[in-house]
Amino acid sequence: MSDFASPYWFTEQCDKTGSAFSLRVKNKIVEKQSQFQKIEIYQTTDFGYLMVLDGCTMVSSRENFFYHEMMSHPALFTHPKPQNVVVIGGGDCGTLKEVLKHTSVEAATQIDIDELVTDMAKRYFPELCESNQDPRAQIIFGDGIKFMHDALPESLDIIIVDSTDPVGPSEGLYDYAFYQSCLNALKPDGILVQQSESPILHQKLIKEMREAMLEVGFSNLQTIIFPQPIYPSGLWSCTLAKKQGDFGEFRHKDAAEMSNNCEYYSPVVHQAAMRLPNFLKKSL
Amino acid sequence: MSDFASPYWFTEQCDKTGSAFSLRVKNKIVEKQSQFQKIEIYQTTDFGYLMVLDGCTMVSSRENFFYHEMMSHPALFTHPKPQNVVVIGGGDCGTLKEVLKHTSVEAATQIDIDELVTDMAKRYFPELCESNQDPRAQIIFGDGIKFMHDALPESLDIIIVDSTDPVGPSEGLYDYAFYQSCLNALKPDGILVQQSESPILHQKLIKEMREAMLEVGFSNLQTIIFPQPIYPSGLWSCTLAKKQGDFGEFRHKDAAEMSNNCEYYSPVVHQAAMRLPNFLKKSL
Repeated sequence: MSDFASPYWFTEQCDKTGSAFSLRVKNKIVEKQSQFQKIEIYQTTDFGYLMVLDGCTMVSSRENFFYHEMMSHPALFTHPKPQNVVVIGGGDCGTLKEVLKHTSVEAATQIDIDELVTDMAKRYFPELCESNQDPRAQIIFGDGIKFMHDALPESLDIIIVDSTDPVGPSEGLYDYAFYQSCLNALKPDGILVQQSESPILHQKLIKEMREAMLEVGFSNLQTIIFPQPIYPSGLWSCTLAKKQGDFGEFRHKDAAEMSNNCEYYSPVVHQAAMRLPNFLKKSL
Repeated sequence: MSDFASPYWFTEQCDKTGSAFSLRVKNKIVEKQSQFQKIEIYQTTDFGYLMVLDGCTMVSSRENFFYHEMMSHPALFTHPKPQNVVVIGGGDCGTLKEVLKHTSVEAATQIDIDELVTDMAKRYFPELCESNQDPRAQIIFGDGIKFMHDALPESLDIIIVDSTDPVGPSEGLYDYAFYQSCLNALKPDGILVQQSESPILHQKLIKEMREAMLEVGFSNLQTIIFPQPIYPSGLWSCTLAKKQGDFGEFRHKDAAEMSNNCEYYSPVVHQAAMRLPNFLKKSL
């Protein structure tokens, strides 16, 4: 039984799931309250910098690649030719960077509500922001729900919802009205990607999200799973929703080429991530 | 910054890697010092029972399947016809149970040094012990290093080293002399499996283990990775070492059949687990 009273550990205690994860910190560098959330930056002893939003670990220098690669490449390689991509949330710019690795992409627009998150990312996670100056990138600070509500019908190939947990500023990104807006804004072969929490701890949320996506009219769903060491349970997921028709095969050859430029993603990882393991199948 | 002074959380604090993981507990049920280690059993709020050895989380009711399935099935399906299998350590009997799912297996022998671990498993993890009465199973309490040293040459198809971390009672399971004994005891197409810690946190250990295995004469190595929510970083590994020749293809058809009877394992998971991601390749 350890005592964490020491100021040298940051702990995310997840009361709903009875688990907690901690990183040892050298220094707390930033604590700011934005209009939307509390933002903290820690310098850890072993994981580089750590960004925390409203008490939840968001991104560390050491292992964010799992999340950013898996939020983007499976969807983009499932689409035959993704050209117009929108990232809702994603203020650390890591998902945007992965999206821009795709040469087919002509426009990648990131809409995060909180400019301070991106300011902090530029300062403490510059490696995630290195494609922000790409001429195809547009970075907007505003309301993703409104942006998607106002988007032109059938204008987008991929929408990636790279949001925090479905409480606080992100709550409205997990409901029918928002999914309906996304459906309208996607072209017929378009794909919505939503981060869908832990496949071990949050099976009810995944089930409800999938039901809502089908109810608004998405034709096919694919939940994929991947490691995420600093999130509860160490295993995370996102859910892909296809507007019309089946997903079909993903572009294996292009994926294999991309994998040389990734830390985790590869075609075989993609294939395995798509397989719902029995422990999850039972509850969905 | 949370304060963990409350007695209702068990925390494994990993000072070497600057991370910690905690589960909330309802009750501490057992604390016993065996001849070899301190054994604790907790009843957690969300993960069932938890066994802790010398302060390190070993197994919880909720998620041990990842580890036990991945320590056994990839090796057994890589071997053309595993008949004679030895598990060194594995006192919770979960790996033994997975091994005995293979109908080709004629004898499965488990040698753990600490009988108290198995006594506790029978009581608090009876689901892991449900094959202990299988007529093909033999459960021995004794020194795995000596057992392997004395084993008949070329008598075994698979050796699974399901041990605790390479400190304390398991230290001798990670050295040249032990690997040499294993090599001698394996038939020419035999495979050694050693749990090899976190691919994120313990890359140096994996590298040194692999070098030692090659040095004693194993011809081919395959490190595989899999989720393990209650171990540091949530991602774990084991390393397969082939006595002679290449691994070749694993038995996909048999693996597909087995996957109906597993929570996580499947042929595509097996395939992906074998792929060394770039972040690990660089350091090995």
